Amino acid sequence: MQSSTPSAAGRPRSDLHATAFAATLRSVSELGYAGATMDRIAVAAGVAKTTLYRRWPSKGALIVDCLLDAFGPVRLQGTDRGEIMASAIHWVAAKIGEPGVGAAFAGVFSDAINDPALRTILSERLQEPYRLTLQEALGEPDDRILLLIDIVTGTLLHRMGMTGEPMVDADVAVLVEMVLRTFG
Amino acid sequence: MQSSTPSAAGRPRSDLHATAFAATLRSVSELGYAGATMDRIAVAAGVAKTTLYRRWPSKGALIVDCLLDAFGPVRLQGTDRGEIMASAIHWVAAKIGEPGVGAAFAGVFSDAINDPALRTILSERLQEPYRLTLQEALGEPDDRILLLIDIVTGTLLHRMGMTGEPMVDADVAVLVEMVLRTFG
Repeated sequence: MQSSTPSAAGRPRSDLHATAFAATLRSVSELGYAGATMDRIAVAAGVAKTTLYRRWPSKGALIVDCLLDAFGPVRLQGTDRGEIMASAIHWVAAKIGEPGVGAAFAGVFSDAINDPALRTILSERLQEPYRLTLQEALGEPDDRILLLIDIVTGTLLHRMGMTGEPMVDADVAVLVEMVLRTFG
Repeated sequence: MQSSTPSAAGRPRSDLHATAFAATLRSVSELGYAGATMDRIAVAAGVAKTTLYRRWPSKGALIVDCLLDAFGPVRLQGTDRGEIMASAIHWVAAKIGEPGVGAAFAGVFSDAINDPALRTILSERLQEPYRLTLQEALGEPDDRILLLIDIVTGTLLHRMGMTGEPMVDADVAVLVEMVLRTFG
């Protein structure tokens, strides 16, 4: 957490962020993505709805920033491409399994299918930094990295939707093996 | 379309189904999954909301039946496992690209993450028939077939969410190749 100066509303900016993100994940985890409205998130955060809207123009924008915060920088470990890729897949699988994260992620994707503005936020703010990092680490062209991201996160989210549970380690291992054979 | 007898409400059952499914896909395509409420779908279908609720107890149940109708039986073509699997992947990629289908599919999955009753409908009514057909055709154990379904549909839906467009053929070809190396 970086240090912060009080905002116009008297609440330090990073404090508002931390409070809003925690309230968002808690609300999504308890009420589902659709049920976690800006109203309910504001109540859970103990702030006025206008305070949320001053910082995030839409629920989609709040969810994307919340996911960026929850994921943090991609964890790339290891000395060769295979190890690096495997560490990234295990990292995202663990993150998607955290309470509220998988549902928030899947929900914002679904909304984005019919919402071009949200798609732009999603691809530029959320996906782009990871794409760049992975591209630098793996030296693959754009379209291969984007397909890699689709395959890994899409598979993990589909499993969450079908079972309500994160993917078990044995299945993550098959996913890693399959991805390494194609991209490794 | 099978022949049908008029229902208690005077409207043939299969006619109600066809009308409701077309209205559902049209509404999802125009308004997004969240915006396509039972109210809006009823208006688009030109029926009373109670008529929809008499047949489908929830929006999730309607969406699942609508998807079953849109997908129809899985298309398995070819003489070896590789051809059969490739034909199934191309089939589902084309279906997910039809107007409203990808958004309805992704939306119902997101809702299901926090809705155990919807997850049961989704896995038993929608996934189970395809799992059985694939299992019979490919002779793989349960968990492999379920992972195969996660990988293929998850990847295709994630791409829809990021781009708003179905996956292009070149990327579907890489997906097929990758799946065949692992499951083929």
